[in-house]
Amino acid sequence: ENGPGHDGEESENILSGFKTSSVLSDSAREKNIFIHGKLADQEAVVILEKTPIREETLAEIFSGSRLKLDLRNDIYSTYRLQAPPHLNEIKTTVVCPATEKHIKKYKRQESFLVEETGTDYRSITLPYIQKQSFSVQWVHNILEKKAEAERVVYEDPDPEVGFVLLPDFKWDQKQVHDLYLIAIVHQRNIRSLRDLTSDHIPLLQNIFQKGKEAILQRYELPASKLRVYLHYQPSYYHLHVHFTTLGYDAPGCGVERAHLLADVIQNLQSDPQYYEKRTLYFPLRADDGLLGKFKEAGRL
Amino acid sequence: ENGPGHDGEESENILSGFKTSSVLSDSAREKNIFIHGKLADQEAVVILEKTPIREETLAEIFSGSRLKLDLRNDIYSTYRLQAPPHLNEIKTTVVCPATEKHIKKYKRQESFLVEETGTDYRSITLPYIQKQSFSVQWVHNILEKKAEAERVVYEDPDPEVGFVLLPDFKWDQKQVHDLYLIAIVHQRNIRSLRDLTSDHIPLLQNIFQKGKEAILQRYELPASKLRVYLHYQPSYYHLHVHFTTLGYDAPGCGVERAHLLADVIQNLQSDPQYYEKRTLYFPLRADDGLLGKFKEAGRL
Repeated sequence: ENGPGHDGEESENILSGFKTSSVLSDSAREKNIFIHGKLADQEAVVILEKTPIREETLAEIFSGSRLKLDLRNDIYSTYRLQAPPHLNEIKTTVVCPATEKHIKKYKRQESFLVEETGTDYRSITLPYIQKQSFSVQWVHNILEKKAEAERVVYEDPDPEVGFVLLPDFKWDQKQVHDLYLIAIVHQRNIRSLRDLTSDHIPLLQNIFQKGKEAILQRYELPASKLRVYLHYQPSYYHLHVHFTTLGYDAPGCGVERAHLLADVIQNLQSDPQYYEKRTLYFPLRADDGLLGKFKEAGRL
Repeated sequence: ENGPGHDGEESENILSGFKTSSVLSDSAREKNIFIHGKLADQEAVVILEKTPIREETLAEIFSGSRLKLDLRNDIYSTYRLQAPPHLNEIKTTVVCPATEKHIKKYKRQESFLVEETGTDYRSITLPYIQKQSFSVQWVHNILEKKAEAERVVYEDPDPEVGFVLLPDFKWDQKQVHDLYLIAIVHQRNIRSLRDLTSDHIPLLQNIFQKGKEAILQRYELPASKLRVYLHYQPSYYHLHVHFTTLGYDAPGCGVERAHLLADVIQNLQSDPQYYEKRTLYFPLRADDGLLGKFKEAGRL
């Protein structure tokens, strides 16, 4: 019955009739949850996300809340704080009616950590990659300037140690604090980390050195502000190197998938066959065909 | 006045007397805030972090909340939801009295990637750690059961290969999807990764094996859902290992700081002196005294 006001329209609680079917995904870090269910017989997705804590509400939170002690150790103590509801709202988005597409979009896939020995690579992973023959036509288009030529930040055209450096699709290029560039090598026969030997050290050092120089020149970001790494497994099997800002928590920069280029170079210097023999660990999503191959082989 | 119970001890609201001096940092993504201020004339740091949304509370949140409409557009609508306070708690950590170091630790700072050779470690880092003599009294309290004894998830009391496994402060233990446990070794003379040699392989394998078993038994999480790693630099110089859920993007799990325990074991197997000689890379914050030492030495 209230009209819309500065404080938002008091709304009938339509969610009291919401019937949860399943949690599509959630994030403990971001404090959100994506729920599939029914609202008055229609398919719906409800997204809840806790709101950031605002400095200007702190005084009222401190004075107006209840505290429950959880533990005390030396100078540290932890509590659960129950704040007045209007200072601790949950942002709620309702999609209704929701289509199959919405539901898929918000659904999280479970991941499993896979242990791949050098033998596993040759008997499970390599045959799988070869059979799939994932298309890297779009990579060749970039290298041949048939696509994205205007996006290139830097190029070293040398066929052996050369590469093209350009922004990753995830980066909107609006600010450098989430800078994300990719260096794609001109050589076409290197699928991934697993193919690297000491022969590739000059290529890797060239990417590391010239990539850092190009980023300093173009974006005024020194090497000490960069995280430079490869993925294993990569999302496409043509060797490429990621350059992201150290302060930006880029997706895929976790220790379970990323390998610092500086470490890769050191490893190959200490053992030319390091990546042929080494046991590598990486996550695979439940719907990844390669995970099925590891299961069939009894390796999971 | 209530005694401790299942729901936590109702505590006098000590925060009603908290005087904010400044916000040290905050994260809109993670919904937390770090505040420096005074509590009864003592320096204190208060950390507030909203808690993850739990599936089992959804029905009660949907039925027991107030909704305020923000906007409606086609099939999309957004609301602000005011939930019952006991279903929407804020995890609160109080550090009091807090030292200059705590305040520095929580203050948002630019980070720089440092390259530390084995020689740099011995000539710059080790003397710095020794001079600082960071207190690990709280770690000894845990190992001696003088604190947090009831939080211990698993213990192997062996003085050589034993450890205590317990929840990290950052984890509220309400759901396993952001599980975060720490294994603290009983040996007291291992500062970090740099002190590890092949002599420690039995210790590391024991932590890896028994830690995974304890987590499977207690939380029904198999090893394939875990990320097990060490930090370098660590935040305290008494060897400890992090166990987090693979699907949870835990702070500090980035490739620039985390080292998979499985890799550490492999590295020591291939070279007993690996971590004595190896060049290691890690971020240091602008105000970290160690960064100053690297600058003085002309290493940055």
